[in-house]
Amino acid sequence: MNTQEKVSIQQLKETIDVALQRYLPSATTRPSELHSAMRYSACEGGKRVRALLLLICSSIYRQSEDPLPACVAIECVHAYSLIHDDLPTIDNSALRRNKPSCHIAFDEATALLAGDALLTEAFIILSTHYAHRPELGLYLTQILSTTSGSSGMIGGQKEDIDNEGQSIDSETLEYIHKNKTAKLIQAAILMGFAFAPKGDCPLSSNDREMLGYHIGMAFQYLDDLLDAQSNSSILGKPTGKDNDLEKLTSIKVYGLEATRKRINQHSDTALELLRKAQANTALIESYIESLRQRIN
Amino acid sequence: MNTQEKVSIQQLKETIDVALQRYLPSATTRPSELHSAMRYSACEGGKRVRALLLLICSSIYRQSEDPLPACVAIECVHAYSLIHDDLPTIDNSALRRNKPSCHIAFDEATALLAGDALLTEAFIILSTHYAHRPELGLYLTQILSTTSGSSGMIGGQKEDIDNEGQSIDSETLEYIHKNKTAKLIQAAILMGFAFAPKGDCPLSSNDREMLGYHIGMAFQYLDDLLDAQSNSSILGKPTGKDNDLEKLTSIKVYGLEATRKRINQHSDTALELLRKAQANTALIESYIESLRQRIN
Repeated sequence: MNTQEKVSIQQLKETIDVALQRYLPSATTRPSELHSAMRYSACEGGKRVRALLLLICSSIYRQSEDPLPACVAIECVHAYSLIHDDLPTIDNSALRRNKPSCHIAFDEATALLAGDALLTEAFIILSTHYAHRPELGLYLTQILSTTSGSSGMIGGQKEDIDNEGQSIDSETLEYIHKNKTAKLIQAAILMGFAFAPKGDCPLSSNDREMLGYHIGMAFQYLDDLLDAQSNSSILGKPTGKDNDLEKLTSIKVYGLEATRKRINQHSDTALELLRKAQANTALIESYIESLRQRIN
Repeated sequence: MNTQEKVSIQQLKETIDVALQRYLPSATTRPSELHSAMRYSACEGGKRVRALLLLICSSIYRQSEDPLPACVAIECVHAYSLIHDDLPTIDNSALRRNKPSCHIAFDEATALLAGDALLTEAFIILSTHYAHRPELGLYLTQILSTTSGSSGMIGGQKEDIDNEGQSIDSETLEYIHKNKTAKLIQAAILMGFAFAPKGDCPLSSNDREMLGYHIGMAFQYLDDLLDAQSNSSILGKPTGKDNDLEKLTSIKVYGLEATRKRINQHSDTALELLRKAQANTALIESYIESLRQRIN
């Protein structure tokens, strides 16, 4: 990523952060503590990977509509999933994004409800802000709900929990990675491209889905790799933790080298698919490259 | 409610139960236990009050579209709210609909995720089954998300928890009842009327909202009354429980007689509003009357 691209990404991230502040209910709106907890988990910290991917993809073609509400919606879904994952009944994780997890900063009941409310808020935002473009709004709703539901993100989370401490199996690991993480990344890509006026984007539905899948898988393998290599002060969450909980990670199944190889393979396939876009895809390409470069 | 009406309501309830079985993901779909938990809580037992109100309201005018997916969606939201309410961190309730609560029948993590998945499923169903009618689909999404979000059902739940054991205050009780229960009943009414072709229904948006509000409030006061009077074998959940948890109930704030009076007042206002509908509203009227008759 060159300096100009770094500046662009940073600017986009700041735009997303401003949008989160703007579109989420105010902390002074009743019930105040609930809204504070929602904002605590959604607005503060986080790399905004999903919103960035959505925003970058939405800007490849002429933009027919403001994508920021959709960016906020996908970050709401991501934030809710982290709050619920961190709860004692699931990961029992006290630290998230370099600060106490929601249930530590508030309490368990508030965290549970803040998660529920963020998930619901995603659909409030989509259905309200795209009410004048119902076809777009309902399509965005369909993508976000389907990818984050029981046959998507939640399904992946369920099998992740079920397989803690079990013998390792690459088919199960693939299912978990594909659903728990890659599906929401895929949602970001699909939602971003949905903003292109009809006929502008030559990528087929399947191309877009595969693009999202490969970026998502590269991202998840990278996460496993970084978890194995880094320390908690860099990542902002406890590391080596996946190992402690005896979760299936790609490092255990494939080892470090093969995991690096998979990141490269998925990134290459994604970059190849992007060539079909017949447009300026420099920013998304360099974003994928920047993920890949974190391997070393 | 006369015999014919009783038969109609029973038939509609059966139609809803069949739709729930049909539209929810199969228990054999991976992850099987998650889908079993979703079906356990959404498909088995329950009076289907919200779906019935939606279905009845949708049939007052010419029906432009199949309302059953919307009925299933609202029951998904209701079922998710019950699963999460019953969790140890909130009500810690082991019995629901005459059987073990979801987290007892399965486990806490599965119950948490099944709740998340049912909430998400509601929006999958709306966005998928009304994809050919995007304006209707997005409007239904907007109603269901807004009424069940942080300024609706979840907000009511939050203040209910916050005020356990606190001194009783009728303004707070009104907020809790209005949001925790009445909002989703209101959603049922608004969603039902949304199926009327444009121009057919003379009720204004405000009329419909007030109709939903008054039916919802009557329903909640009745619930408090029944809780105080009945035993758990009739209601299918522990009773006197609200009192044990020192929750605010209308019985504590107003007493039995004044609560009965409120049920009558809200029912009367609802019936009065229905007169503006200029259509055959016999079934919804008798359904409201049947709620009211449970007072004695």
